[in-house]
Amino acid sequence: MPDASQPRDEFSVIARYFQQLDKGPDVVLGNGDDAAVLRLAPGEELVVSADSMLEGVHFPPKSPPIELAYRAVAAATSDLAAMGARPVAMTLALSLPSAEDPWLEGIRSGLSEAVADFSLPLVGGDLTRGPLTLSVQVLGAVPAGRAIRRDGANPGDIVYVSGSLGDSAAGLAVIEGRLRCEDKVTQTLRARFWRPSPELELGVSLRDKATAAIDVSDGLLADLGHIAQASKVGMFVDTARIPVSATLSSIVPAEQALAWALRGGEDYRLCFTLPETVNAPDGCIPIGCVESGSGVRCDSAGGSDGYRHF
Amino acid sequence: MPDASQPRDEFSVIARYFQQLDKGPDVVLGNGDDAAVLRLAPGEELVVSADSMLEGVHFPPKSPPIELAYRAVAAATSDLAAMGARPVAMTLALSLPSAEDPWLEGIRSGLSEAVADFSLPLVGGDLTRGPLTLSVQVLGAVPAGRAIRRDGANPGDIVYVSGSLGDSAAGLAVIEGRLRCEDKVTQTLRARFWRPSPELELGVSLRDKATAAIDVSDGLLADLGHIAQASKVGMFVDTARIPVSATLSSIVPAEQALAWALRGGEDYRLCFTLPETVNAPDGCIPIGCVESGSGVRCDSAGGSDGYRHF
Repeated sequence: MPDASQPRDEFSVIARYFQQLDKGPDVVLGNGDDAAVLRLAPGEELVVSADSMLEGVHFPPKSPPIELAYRAVAAATSDLAAMGARPVAMTLALSLPSAEDPWLEGIRSGLSEAVADFSLPLVGGDLTRGPLTLSVQVLGAVPAGRAIRRDGANPGDIVYVSGSLGDSAAGLAVIEGRLRCEDKVTQTLRARFWRPSPELELGVSLRDKATAAIDVSDGLLADLGHIAQASKVGMFVDTARIPVSATLSSIVPAEQALAWALRGGEDYRLCFTLPETVNAPDGCIPIGCVESGSGVRCDSAGGSDGYRHF
Repeated sequence: MPDASQPRDEFSVIARYFQQLDKGPDVVLGNGDDAAVLRLAPGEELVVSADSMLEGVHFPPKSPPIELAYRAVAAATSDLAAMGARPVAMTLALSLPSAEDPWLEGIRSGLSEAVADFSLPLVGGDLTRGPLTLSVQVLGAVPAGRAIRRDGANPGDIVYVSGSLGDSAAGLAVIEGRLRCEDKVTQTLRARFWRPSPELELGVSLRDKATAAIDVSDGLLADLGHIAQASKVGMFVDTARIPVSATLSSIVPAEQALAWALRGGEDYRLCFTLPETVNAPDGCIPIGCVESGSGVRCDSAGGSDGYRHF
């Protein structure tokens, strides 16, 4: 069956499109062998995460390949940011229904931009004929013992997010035709969905400061719930402090904007907790505090229930 | 769209089935955070490879989940063996059309056996609703500079394989109903397809000895072609020396057995080159030699062409 699995000729496609994205300071041996070989610095630990995107599940059918590729890598890279890791390399398992050149060229362009933007060479993976799926595995490194985990938040800590929330959910609504607005706004929101910016530098700067961190992927309240559960604490969110972009505020009612900000997810901001005595990095916004107990509590504007457990 | 992507509740499924497979001496932080954290020994380099299996492409529809899971991990692990790497950990991107308990229990059992057999804890990944796909990323380690690559074979080296070839292709023929034989033989051949044994110990023992190595996945001739291309040499294969199991010899004509051994692939034996002066490990069989030139050359029994380029 191996032949049936290879769109056109797997080797020629890989060589043509993906072979040259494997250069980086940590790459000892890139593509083309049974495995890649990577170098960490002395005293570093390896940080690893995997994230898949499927057509029709994580992105609409007939999406532009350049955007898919970029977003898949950005979303996976965001997990490195949330751990305070520096990027080292990635692998990609790519399943695709056809191997048409313009489409593959789009994937290559998106990967190429992501490789450059996140300093994350593509050192391996495989290519199979099948339903459109991108499975990205990211590898990073942290000085031993300094990864930022989810389980260190303490009552009294302040909860921060690194930027506005909800634009990604609005962008998806635009892409799916559920939200219509003028061209310039449309472009901005689409870009917020397709082009997340994993906050790698911020993550590194939070090492030894943040007691817990996570990236906002499932939705702010759900992600805070993950920290609460891991840290065995409760969370209070002051919804009046939730940052929403001027773009989003200008096109939907405040209630819809807040709903997307709290529950939309996939903004790939960092959400983290700092002891009250530690100053937050510039641009980060305090949105609540850690308390004893469990679950995530909002003021009444947070939803008709006003109180949710996760 | 995140909700639609989660069969039942992604978190509860992961917690129930896969969370407990993450223990190992190199695991600093296992499942349940944004990423896992792993420890290499001082002076080691990281070895990484990814390998996907799709239903209908790499295995027939309605295959037993325990076997799929085991085989997907074994096939990926074989790439670590081919590099001379020790196993460290793996991640799994699992896409599945439903989340029925008996089926998930099968996947868990297969993973659990593979984790134990290959000392490869499962430290992360994700779970998505979609066409049945298992994307395994394996992580291993080698002392710096000692990974066995494909590009070091020299004219005059002897070519070895680590065991019999062709059983996996015969096993697939049995599974697909193209080959019928008595029950005991059927069981043996099915197991050769579903339960490859990545040769991790052999790979480690070949460090600093083998000039090149690869695992037999695409088919012996194709895989030798990869070494030839990377090393810029030619290969001669003496087909009379190709090892075929007694089981396989007993059920098909010699010509069919040889065809499967040369071109069937997925046996996951190691194929490697040693300088003439170096003794091969016990059980390894010399099948040919490296020569100057390019491509892979067989004696006339190797196929109607007798000479093939890859």
